[in-house]
Amino acid sequence: MNNVQTIVALSTPSGSGALGVIRLSGPDAIFIINSIFKGKDLTKQASHTLHFGLIMDKDTILDEVVVGLFLAPKSYTKENVVEISCHGSSYIIQRIINLLIEQGARAAKPGEFTLQAFVNGAFDLSKAEAVADLIASNSKASHDIAMQQMRGGFANELQGLREKLIHFASMIELELDFAEEDVEFANREELKNLVLQINKVIARLIVSFELGNVIKNGIPIVIAGKPNVGKSTLLNALLNEERAIVSDIAGTTRDTIEDEINIEGVIFRFIDTAGIRETADLIEAKGVERTLEKMKQAKLIIYMADALQDFDDIASQIAGLEKQDIPYLLLVNKSDLLTDLQKEQLKELPVHFISAMSNIGVDELKDSLLETVNIKNLNTNETILTNIRHVEALKNTEAALNRVLENVDNPITSDFLAMDIKQALHYLGEIVGEVTTDDLLDNIFSKFCIGK
Amino acid sequence: MNNVQTIVALSTPSGSGALGVIRLSGPDAIFIINSIFKGKDLTKQASHTLHFGLIMDKDTILDEVVVGLFLAPKSYTKENVVEISCHGSSYIIQRIINLLIEQGARAAKPGEFTLQAFVNGAFDLSKAEAVADLIASNSKASHDIAMQQMRGGFANELQGLREKLIHFASMIELELDFAEEDVEFANREELKNLVLQINKVIARLIVSFELGNVIKNGIPIVIAGKPNVGKSTLLNALLNEERAIVSDIAGTTRDTIEDEINIEGVIFRFIDTAGIRETADLIEAKGVERTLEKMKQAKLIIYMADALQDFDDIASQIAGLEKQDIPYLLLVNKSDLLTDLQKEQLKELPVHFISAMSNIGVDELKDSLLETVNIKNLNTNETILTNIRHVEALKNTEAALNRVLENVDNPITSDFLAMDIKQALHYLGEIVGEVTTDDLLDNIFSKFCIGK
Repeated sequence: MNNVQTIVALSTPSGSGALGVIRLSGPDAIFIINSIFKGKDLTKQASHTLHFGLIMDKDTILDEVVVGLFLAPKSYTKENVVEISCHGSSYIIQRIINLLIEQGARAAKPGEFTLQAFVNGAFDLSKAEAVADLIASNSKASHDIAMQQMRGGFANELQGLREKLIHFASMIELELDFAEEDVEFANREELKNLVLQINKVIARLIVSFELGNVIKNGIPIVIAGKPNVGKSTLLNALLNEERAIVSDIAGTTRDTIEDEINIEGVIFRFIDTAGIRETADLIEAKGVERTLEKMKQAKLIIYMADALQDFDDIASQIAGLEKQDIPYLLLVNKSDLLTDLQKEQLKELPVHFISAMSNIGVDELKDSLLETVNIKNLNTNETILTNIRHVEALKNTEAALNRVLENVDNPITSDFLAMDIKQALHYLGEIVGEVTTDDLLDNIFSKFCIGK
Repeated sequence: MNNVQTIVALSTPSGSGALGVIRLSGPDAIFIINSIFKGKDLTKQASHTLHFGLIMDKDTILDEVVVGLFLAPKSYTKENVVEISCHGSSYIIQRIINLLIEQGARAAKPGEFTLQAFVNGAFDLSKAEAVADLIASNSKASHDIAMQQMRGGFANELQGLREKLIHFASMIELELDFAEEDVEFANREELKNLVLQINKVIARLIVSFELGNVIKNGIPIVIAGKPNVGKSTLLNALLNEERAIVSDIAGTTRDTIEDEINIEGVIFRFIDTAGIRETADLIEAKGVERTLEKMKQAKLIIYMADALQDFDDIASQIAGLEKQDIPYLLLVNKSDLLTDLQKEQLKELPVHFISAMSNIGVDELKDSLLETVNIKNLNTNETILTNIRHVEALKNTEAALNRVLENVDNPITSDFLAMDIKQALHYLGEIVGEVTTDDLLDNIFSKFCIGK
């Protein structure tokens, strides 16, 4: 792909800072920067070198900068890349970008540097997507998954299986060419085994998405319970700050409050809810409705009771959650006020005792949360999907492969067999970007930030 | 100054972006980055080179980065400097900085890189201050002044005069050593001429501060006038957006509204004010009070009248402004409604006609504004002060030099003469930083952003 235009963008966040980095990429990048640079002749410098000099607007000095050169193909995009490190004034940054555009560069679209890299074969599509995830990562867990995907991750695994499948596809094509001779180049048993093997990998990856998705977006946990049992206080204890308004008046929390907390590198989104009860207060009634809605989206519900709540009531609430198959954790607050009898009764249920106010049992709760979402083994090298696009492609692959399995033993349907294998290959190819459409690429790269 | 600790900070703005740049400076900078870098051995690389590699947290890959090396003394701070260009995730940035601190770096204070550069003699104090101004510059005018100061500016001019004065100081010291012999090593006429020359430069610089200050902070322009003459509409026309609430009801604008507009690279702060009139509305009355206050701070007052306003009234308002020696510009709005007679009358005054609503005469007004604040010659190389600290030092120098002039012809007061010259030298030295105190440095560099 030649005739690429040289693109330019600010790659660092806008806003006030000591420095800003403007990135140029394309065949004319060195030539363009050299035309406004006073210092060494940049067209004669080696790759991977840094050069101090002045950015000139005709005879006026615009800034003192350091220019980094990466010559094609030894760069992120495999084009010539220039990084200009200038003073972090928005005026200066804007002026330099304008000068570069006057000299022939074009303002880059979001993710266009990474798109250039992908188009030039620097990496596959799933790695390109991982770059965006990496930039957006805000916890150890989401970072680890993005990094694994960027370093190859499941793409490498799929690629090997895909190549084996390509082999079968060509064998079956060959059979079709010799259709009248009734030969069989592709061993049907081997094909079946391969398809089963691929389907096993796909099934595992699809299952991993559920976890991957919550890790990427935070794990939603709803805190529910009767009014005034201390849900807001618990949230505060978990957050270590005064986030929710806490008062002794039942029904203080009218709206759901969401907040994120990072427990050992995993982001949990805690959702405090309006107390579930019959209420005459209209605003609060709306809150109750939202609570039920939120409960459906939650990965886990913390049902919170307290020492004052009737045991039978607690037991029936828990039974309700179990009946609906909602994962829950029963938490009894104000545990210092419990009688021994109450404790005995409650121990029949899987219960955690805490005192949110005095911060007793909060650390144990955090451990249980990590356990409940089964995140302990995250740091092994198991592949975890986080991208819905990959899931869709894998599901389509799986469907095509299932049709292959149906037809594999029927010699009459070799035509269909060949077609279904091709379809499976097509969908697998979509993941790594061997099969792409402009729409697909637009859709992926438009979600990037500018300058990457 | 050895035993400097290696400092580290994020040099790009925090927030989401494609990349972040972490800067290390100090004797151990290369050693520290090398201890968490997987790639080439960075301790064996040349200055001004770029290296792709991995940042490792023990066995875990934290990020793929590019590291730039600047070996002492060929760097901004004259220490070893390392710039790590990583993915712009706040999680990654925080982790890398923490790793570097674990390896022996220390979190940098605001402006500490520039302080290191100043301490190591990379540039004088007035240039260091210009770096902060440059980063903060938001218009061509403020940028040009900061850049001139950074490139040497008035410091060079003062430095030459200061050296001549040092020569006289030593001559007079010598006279004191030979006090009983009544010799005169320092030619009094030459000294007088030098002092007059220095004072002339100082006087010019002090005067320039008024302009420099308004350029740096924006030029305050008050728009005043009777209610409903169209002040808010004018502001909108100047700003090209609907900033002020405009209505036909007199007294709509209750509070002053400030907004900045960049006219040919100069920032003007336009202040729309509550209409000046007697009013029963308490909130509005407060607005009137503020108007008068704002008028005192303004560099220029646009007095706005309209076709409906009585000529005698306009003339008396203008007379009032002239009497108080307030620079003004008379603007008659709704000029399309003026009768020929009115126009004739008004032309006796220095008047601009506009129609803010239909955008007639607005461009001419912008030109007049540029002319009025006499900013046309800004792009010449005339030095302009923008820093109140420099003004204070120059005023102190001037006072000491005036004492020198008083005593220069009196042979009895050679002692005082020497002392006053020394004082003048002290204050001049403060500007470029040859004389500093920790307090002074703290005060200057604490205003910097982190990472510069």
